[in-house]
Amino acid sequence: MGETEGMADLFWPGDARAGDILSDEALIAAMVAVEEAWLDALVGSGIAPAGAAKEDLAALVWPNHRDLLAKESEEGGNPAMALVALLRDGLDHNRDAARWLHRGLTSQDVVDTALMLCASEAVASVRASLRAQVAALAVLVEEHRDTPMVARTLTQHAVPTTFGLKAAQWLTGVLDAYDDVAALVLPVQVGGAAGTMAATVELAADRRDPVETVTMLSLELATRLGLTASTPWHTSRATVTRLGDAAVTCTDAWARIANDVLLLGRPEIGELTEGGGGGSSTMPNKANPVLSVLVRRAALTTPQLASTLHLAAADAVDERAAGGWHAEWATLRTLLRRAVVAGEQTTELIDRLEVHPDTMAATLAAAGDDVRAEQRSMAGLAGHAPGGDYRGATDAFVEAPLARAAGVLAAPAEVSP
Amino acid sequence: MGETEGMADLFWPGDARAGDILSDEALIAAMVAVEEAWLDALVGSGIAPAGAAKEDLAALVWPNHRDLLAKESEEGGNPAMALVALLRDGLDHNRDAARWLHRGLTSQDVVDTALMLCASEAVASVRASLRAQVAALAVLVEEHRDTPMVARTLTQHAVPTTFGLKAAQWLTGVLDAYDDVAALVLPVQVGGAAGTMAATVELAADRRDPVETVTMLSLELATRLGLTASTPWHTSRATVTRLGDAAVTCTDAWARIANDVLLLGRPEIGELTEGGGGGSSTMPNKANPVLSVLVRRAALTTPQLASTLHLAAADAVDERAAGGWHAEWATLRTLLRRAVVAGEQTTELIDRLEVHPDTMAATLAAAGDDVRAEQRSMAGLAGHAPGGDYRGATDAFVEAPLARAAGVLAAPAEVSP
Amino acid sequence: MGETEGMADLFWPGDARAGDILSDEALIAAMVAVEEAWLDALVGSGIAPAGAAKEDLAALVWPNHRDLLAKESEEGGNPAMALVALLRDGLDHNRDAARWLHRGLTSQDVVDTALMLCASEAVASVRASLRAQVAALAVLVEEHRDTPMVARTLTQHAVPTTFGLKAAQWLTGVLDAYDDVAALVLPVQVGGAAGTMAATVELAADRRDPVETVTMLSLELATRLGLTASTPWHTSRATVTRLGDAAVTCTDAWARIANDVLLLGRPEIGELTEGGGGGSSTMPNKANPVLSVLVRRAALTTPQLASTLHLAAADAVDERAAGGWHAEWATLRTLLRRAVVAGEQTTELIDRLEVHPDTMAATLAAAGDDVRAEQRSMAGLAGHAPGGDYRGATDAFVEAPLARAAGVLAAPAEVSP
Amino acid sequence: MGETEGMADLFWPGDARAGDILSDEALIAAMVAVEEAWLDALVGSGIAPAGAAKEDLAALVWPNHRDLLAKESEEGGNPAMALVALLRDGLDHNRDAARWLHRGLTSQDVVDTALMLCASEAVASVRASLRAQVAALAVLVEEHRDTPMVARTLTQHAVPTTFGLKAAQWLTGVLDAYDDVAALVLPVQVGGAAGTMAATVELAADRRDPVETVTMLSLELATRLGLTASTPWHTSRATVTRLGDAAVTCTDAWARIANDVLLLGRPEIGELTEGGGGGSSTMPNKANPVLSVLVRRAALTTPQLASTLHLAAADAVDERAAGGWHAEWATLRTLLRRAVVAGEQTTELIDRLEVHPDTMAATLAAAGDDVRAEQRSMAGLAGHAPGGDYRGATDAFVEAPLARAAGVLAAPAEVSP
Repeated sequence: MGETEGMADLFWPGDARAGDILSDEALIAAMVAVEEAWLDALVGSGIAPAGAAKEDLAALVWPNHRDLLAKESEEGGNPAMALVALLRDGLDHNRDAARWLHRGLTSQDVVDTALMLCASEAVASVRASLRAQVAALAVLVEEHRDTPMVARTLTQHAVPTTFGLKAAQWLTGVLDAYDDVAALVLPVQVGGAAGTMAATVELAADRRDPVETVTMLSLELATRLGLTASTPWHTSRATVTRLGDAAVTCTDAWARIANDVLLLGRPEIGELTEGGGGGSSTMPNKANPVLSVLVRRAALTTPQLASTLHLAAADAVDERAAGGWHAEWATLRTLLRRAVVAGEQTTELIDRLEVHPDTMAATLAAAGDDVRAEQRSMAGLAGHAPGGDYRGATDAFVEAPLARAAGVLAAPAEVSP
Repeated sequence: MGETEGMADLFWPGDARAGDILSDEALIAAMVAVEEAWLDALVGSGIAPAGAAKEDLAALVWPNHRDLLAKESEEGGNPAMALVALLRDGLDHNRDAARWLHRGLTSQDVVDTALMLCASEAVASVRASLRAQVAALAVLVEEHRDTPMVARTLTQHAVPTTFGLKAAQWLTGVLDAYDDVAALVLPVQVGGAAGTMAATVELAADRRDPVETVTMLSLELATRLGLTASTPWHTSRATVTRLGDAAVTCTDAWARIANDVLLLGRPEIGELTEGGGGGSSTMPNKANPVLSVLVRRAALTTPQLASTLHLAAADAVDERAAGGWHAEWATLRTLLRRAVVAGEQTTELIDRLEVHPDTMAATLAAAGDDVRAEQRSMAGLAGHAPGGDYRGATDAFVEAPLARAAGVLAAPAEVSP
Repeated sequence: MGETEGMADLFWPGDARAGDILSDEALIAAMVAVEEAWLDALVGSGIAPAGAAKEDLAALVWPNHRDLLAKESEEGGNPAMALVALLRDGLDHNRDAARWLHRGLTSQDVVDTALMLCASEAVASVRASLRAQVAALAVLVEEHRDTPMVARTLTQHAVPTTFGLKAAQWLTGVLDAYDDVAALVLPVQVGGAAGTMAATVELAADRRDPVETVTMLSLELATRLGLTASTPWHTSRATVTRLGDAAVTCTDAWARIANDVLLLGRPEIGELTEGGGGGSSTMPNKANPVLSVLVRRAALTTPQLASTLHLAAADAVDERAAGGWHAEWATLRTLLRRAVVAGEQTTELIDRLEVHPDTMAATLAAAGDDVRAEQRSMAGLAGHAPGGDYRGATDAFVEAPLARAAGVLAAPAEVSP
Repeated sequence: MGETEGMADLFWPGDARAGDILSDEALIAAMVAVEEAWLDALVGSGIAPAGAAKEDLAALVWPNHRDLLAKESEEGGNPAMALVALLRDGLDHNRDAARWLHRGLTSQDVVDTALMLCASEAVASVRASLRAQVAALAVLVEEHRDTPMVARTLTQHAVPTTFGLKAAQWLTGVLDAYDDVAALVLPVQVGGAAGTMAATVELAADRRDPVETVTMLSLELATRLGLTASTPWHTSRATVTRLGDAAVTCTDAWARIANDVLLLGRPEIGELTEGGGGGSSTMPNKANPVLSVLVRRAALTTPQLASTLHLAAADAVDERAAGGWHAEWATLRTLLRRAVVAGEQTTELIDRLEVHPDTMAATLAAAGDDVRAEQRSMAGLAGHAPGGDYRGATDAFVEAPLARAAGVLAAPAEVSP
């Protein structure tokens, strides 16, 4: 299909960061890759004739086909059928390829597997962002484990804490998200018309063990595409909902950081500065914490998208859902792109962050007596004079997340799905 | 910007039906229209020099600017700032226009007003679909007010009813949605930096009554754009949430129809046929009720989008929300486009619908005795022999929705916002 | 059933404010009221014998029946069937009443109508809260129309405004919510087994016009219960979703106020104080803005409850939804109780609110030059020296909401549904 | 507190199945257990005097205190403060216990830890239900691995399959849910006023290593309560959101079963019967698939509850969220109770399920030629005559879920958290 520059959504500033991930073009390319890998597997197993595999299917789809496919996808109810028709048209010079293309598959196989391929890019991006954040936050925690500041609860000053411990809480959220993302499994879908693989078994009817042949084909497809092998999951959609839940766990963690930056960067507080910062269309000199705003925005929208994936999963019936399955595609696309964008924005936000220990110290000093009231009360109870800075276990509590961070950073950066 | 063919989303089959409504291009065109109308109003009032209004701003934005604007919108956090910069660049030959462009406005004024302009197209489309459905359903009700069928509750046969009464229930849902859509108000947003219009008042400082001048400018903007005048609603977002709620009320009504078509069109039931119908990528002869599936799909996703608009509204703080506002744009876009698409699909679904009175009669006859058990019990209670077809008030209950339908159809097809 | 003290949910502090509204006891009482009104109507019309109406059905249900009914409601899938059985048992001394009880109705009639009765209490409470807020906010706006403060956008200082204008934005949100609540209609549901009223028509078979008799019975029921008459709306649920949407529009408006109080009440800002305020379990002297926290809490949860009502509406199929209908009851209960509670809390919050004009003035003065940058830029453009306080139209913009407030307050406090 | 019979919600038929799990009474009991275990740990470590641990705190709270606590919880914004006050009142005879009660803890410690204790009961119940379902479904799969039926996609007949494979898809969903539930971790929360444990460190100031002492106390608390030890997670809420996501993954899997039972149990299809079945309030002889309806109902509501937990997590700011934390309690309660109820209902549904192989065979035979069209087309392509029953790999595809099921059933039934 040639190069594309990546989509970008004017209604979602920052969307360009996600480039082509889960774009229409990426979905088409992934569906083509699925058809090609399957056709090659059929040929490789001797079921289809050798000539069927000689084609570079990707070359048959041109950029201007996108609009056509988008429009024609309505008739079949999904984008795979229109693509198969387009590819068959493009294969009129190779009758074997045209005849054997897509044999044994159904639309859901192509769409589900292509979505997993596309999702793997999003997951890799999110994982890389999380990893970069783990590294940056671990440094921040170490730097500020002795930076005192006032802790705030329910908007009011509470007791002393350190900025290192606050950053360690941020880090814990990021580590939790990392664990969930790292545990994701992205399988191929190969079930045929109704999850029985009957068509492929029929095609392999003259083999010694047609069912085993078919199982090997499914494994072969997974290997070629870099996905996990699986029996059909047409109507059992935890694969999809876990992707959604993990993505939301990410935006939860990122929003928690953005919230603090927005708050502590207010002019009256001034303990943090986003750094960089956007301007105003009418007010010169105004520096807005744009990254934090945009990250927070994402987190206001993603939980409802993930809930839609669950509702779609719960709508499964028969051997293919009549609406639930169709509701997944755009929802997953939007959710994962937003996670990719917010992930990069959060990394940048952390990198740019300016910490103002002097202001933190000044606020704490000004809060003075009030934030020591609990200390006096405890010291009285224990029967000794209050002493020290009342920082409690702030220094110790950063160790656990730092150790988890070290574990993440010691592991190889990229793992295969 | 020249002609565009309309966007289409491969992940949402049928999206092409919404054409350019709320596309990136439409948003840009609407923002340009807002800037131009405001500049013209400034000139018209004598505040800005006459030369400032001589420009066709739309000619300054080319199709290839879209990607640029989409990318640059991140820096300012919204798409208006990048557009203003682009327009000013394009106006280097007209210093007056460049200097007076956007004066008195803030980004939120431009984005909110442009969104309302874009939304007005979506609302008009949805309203036209609802009206067409009201007309078609009224005919269907009349045709089948004497077509007996079995009523089903909790999946089981209950008592006799008519298909006319079922269609009247469909019609009631559509009429309720129509009422909510017809009540929508789409206002301009003109508040300046923080909803005080201070900049424009300053610009008009030499007028007898600067505040009145400013109020007239706001009214003038509304008139030029075909929207409703309003004081600023920067942080009071019922305008947006009502749009969302009305759109969901539409998809609720449409899904209720699609559900019945999907169910009654099952081969074992066969009382309705979607008509037309999509094929299968591997099974010849299979006719899928694709429109119903796609309408149902929409209704599984829209309630959560509307809830996001409410969450954004509830996030308002200060004189501009730090994330809530930004979460609205893409959410409203997606929600309204899905309503437009599902609206057209439902109209087509009703038009194509094939009703099978013979099958309905046969099912009712087969259910026979069981669906008359209640009748026997009531007749016994009343002390008479059960008689008649036990259709109750089916014939009478269609009158109220038919009368409402007549009212809708008697009103002018299109109203100004 | 005797007196109950009102339920209270430990997991939702403040829930006790909603008293018995939509409690289990209230639902039982409402269902009993529906059965009694219908039985009386049957007798009044001469269909049922006079003796059937002599019973005080409410006396037959005792407090300890609640657990029984709650447990037995599972078998029938709804609470009406178990109640009818209980009432019939209690009527063994009056065979006419036992025989004629519930005749012509179905469970959905009883549950839906009872829910509307219960909802009417919630709506009245919310409406009274909104009205009290309108009155209090109108006073606040008037008091502070000349109280200068800094406007904040995206967390940063922007330009001057007045606290009066901020309060006017709060008022606008409350007025919008009031309009939506005031427009609600609460109808009876009378459809019989499948929305055809066939049973009642059969019972009235010996009348001149059985269908007209039945229509009069439905009207009679509405009159007795103080609800609106309606043809059946078994599967057309805008009645329910509009209740939900209006309730969320309320919590949106209330959260917008709470957000400002939480923010401006931070110790570093100090422009508002919640007044009253909760303590801490470990830190003496700490005053938490508890009402604001609890109001904000509500608004984080209600949009998703309203979206569930829409999903339930979109799930309608046949002549009774198989799950969608059942999902409405608890959802509507929780949503409306939370609205009632948040409404009272917001009224109290406004009443207790302490405004600190001196601090507002000091912050504005400190922001000084920066918040006048736009003014200088505009004055330069207009060719005059910047002058005045740059408050723009703040004084004028409070007039529209004040006028709307006056309209609300001039109308009678309570209207019949 | 004495015996309670378990709550039951009339608005949610079946709720009684959840008994006291996450009831108000259970929350009170759990909070008391937390306070008592902490007090005992303080005494055990020698920080508090021995006399402080002599009390049975649970005996100080009586059933009629529930309403009081529910009402007073509003003032502090959470239920812990009112409870501490009540317990201190009850301890006026033991000054040591009164003085040392709750020392070092904050309300969030008590509420969060108590919620985890309550949640552990819900998780155990759900896990037991899933395990019972795994056992029952494994039997069903084995029994019907050779029971042919027609597969349906998009409501239409597709190709042959077996009921064993359909049941294996059900089983896969249940196994996926089991995996997610089994992976849950339920930690104690011990952070003190702001997550620094400063109060407890102050109390232990005369120890050799106060921080280590405090860490041991936290571990001791976890051991006493049967929960997992953890550093504070005040503002990092994946603990809570994972509970929610796992619960929804359960209801997704259960609804997928219920959907099939509802559909295949329709009189026109008749391939399954729910068994048992509820009646109708007006129609004798009608057997409604009530369990399936109620399970499906749950799944329409839980995804939005889980999304609220995520929104609450993303709302974290400072050292305690101002609303987000408070939104969790009732949401988690409702979500987990619904999962417990739906879990039991699904187990019962599977146990009661009646399978009608003859009807399945008859439907498949009637569909005849159409569902073999793909087979003919594949056989033609492969160059052989179509032969056999076209069941593909149905027999093989049940092996993987059966093996997973065997793994689950081989593991010990109950694990400690």
